Amino acid sequence: MSVLLSKEITRLKKKILQMTAIVEESVRKAVSAVRYKNEALADEVIQNDNGIDLMENELEEECLKILALHQPVAIDLRYVVVCMKINNDLERIGDLAVNIADRAKAISREKDDFIPDSISAMIEKAISMLKKSLDAFIEMDLKMAREVSLMDDEVDELNRNMYQEVRKMIMEDPDRTGYLLHVLGVSRQLERIGDYATNISEDVIYMIEGKIVRHSGSK
Amino acid sequence: MSVLLSKEITRLKKKILQMTAIVEESVRKAVSAVRYKNEALADEVIQNDNGIDLMENELEEECLKILALHQPVAIDLRYVVVCMKINNDLERIGDLAVNIADRAKAISREKDDFIPDSISAMIEKAISMLKKSLDAFIEMDLKMAREVSLMDDEVDELNRNMYQEVRKMIMEDPDRTGYLLHVLGVSRQLERIGDYATNISEDVIYMIEGKIVRHSGSK
Repeated sequence: MSVLLSKEITRLKKKILQMTAIVEESVRKAVSAVRYKNEALADEVIQNDNGIDLMENELEEECLKILALHQPVAIDLRYVVVCMKINNDLERIGDLAVNIADRAKAISREKDDFIPDSISAMIEKAISMLKKSLDAFIEMDLKMAREVSLMDDEVDELNRNMYQEVRKMIMEDPDRTGYLLHVLGVSRQLERIGDYATNISEDVIYMIEGKIVRHSGSK
Repeated sequence: MSVLLSKEITRLKKKILQMTAIVEESVRKAVSAVRYKNEALADEVIQNDNGIDLMENELEEECLKILALHQPVAIDLRYVVVCMKINNDLERIGDLAVNIADRAKAISREKDDFIPDSISAMIEKAISMLKKSLDAFIEMDLKMAREVSLMDDEVDELNRNMYQEVRKMIMEDPDRTGYLLHVLGVSRQLERIGDYATNISEDVIYMIEGKIVRHSGSK
């Protein structure tokens, strides 16, 4: 690899790290806004999304520039392509944080404030999947990347439980329907964050092993 | 552009077209399975998803090969990168068709069979967005690509109406909760298909104009 290309790739890595930190923060804030019915915090998440969108555009431009100017091959090519994909997925996770923040605003206007156990468990799992998938990317750690897929099955299971739980609660007390549909909405966004973290981890495995592992496990 | 690169790009276009047809068919079948409570059709969608996954992997390998061997620049580079993204999004739309098929199976076991008007409207809109975004890609048609974003606002609006409608129906008759939550699930998947079609159309605009238009419109 040329010195110049190696420098560009280091810069790319740094930018992905920055973006990761900002997106993770956004998810955490959105989830806190739900937990503590904090509308101001939810608004903050919604406003900050613009910054994430701009970062995504910049990062993509940078990747394209590297492809055009340095024409990397083999692992370097895969690295740049994977950066583009992770960049894309991080931006979409940012959008999911906005969806959660929207729900937080609706939830904070309701009198109800019961947060089901499954949701708390999902919050922890989804955030830790996100962290782990990006740590796997930074450390180029296969083992860590593989652990993420296993965690995804647990998040999917928790989301299914949420459905059952919410269904039962609504039938017992239909007046809570509006509130509980919002809670279910949050659960769904968390499940989708788990899906994106899984995508990222699969891209990391691909980058390291050079073969596509997507769709090889359970869905 | 070299003759060889031009040939490769024509081949890529053909494969994307094939994949588009298969994914569109999958969405149509899943939606029919919901409408007609056809469990066998839903199973077909679920089984065929494997084929879509394999196509995605192949197409991605092909794109990487073109990048490594032909090192395209300018519009050709953008074209290959956009193909990779559309490929990715098509595969995810295939996953959403599977989600709809899962709901169809649950729905077909329920006694209820009322399909709200908003859902029928969403089905038509989401499928036509998907078609239009891919036509815009094939024809390199800016106008068509721009129309897709406008349609997305309508799908989002319909999805919001669905929430209100379902909430009201559940409160009036809580025994229908299970069924109606599944219907709401279908509505959400359709809204996500609209989002992916919007992503595709924005990538088409980017390919033609060379500037990133993502996040410039309403969210």
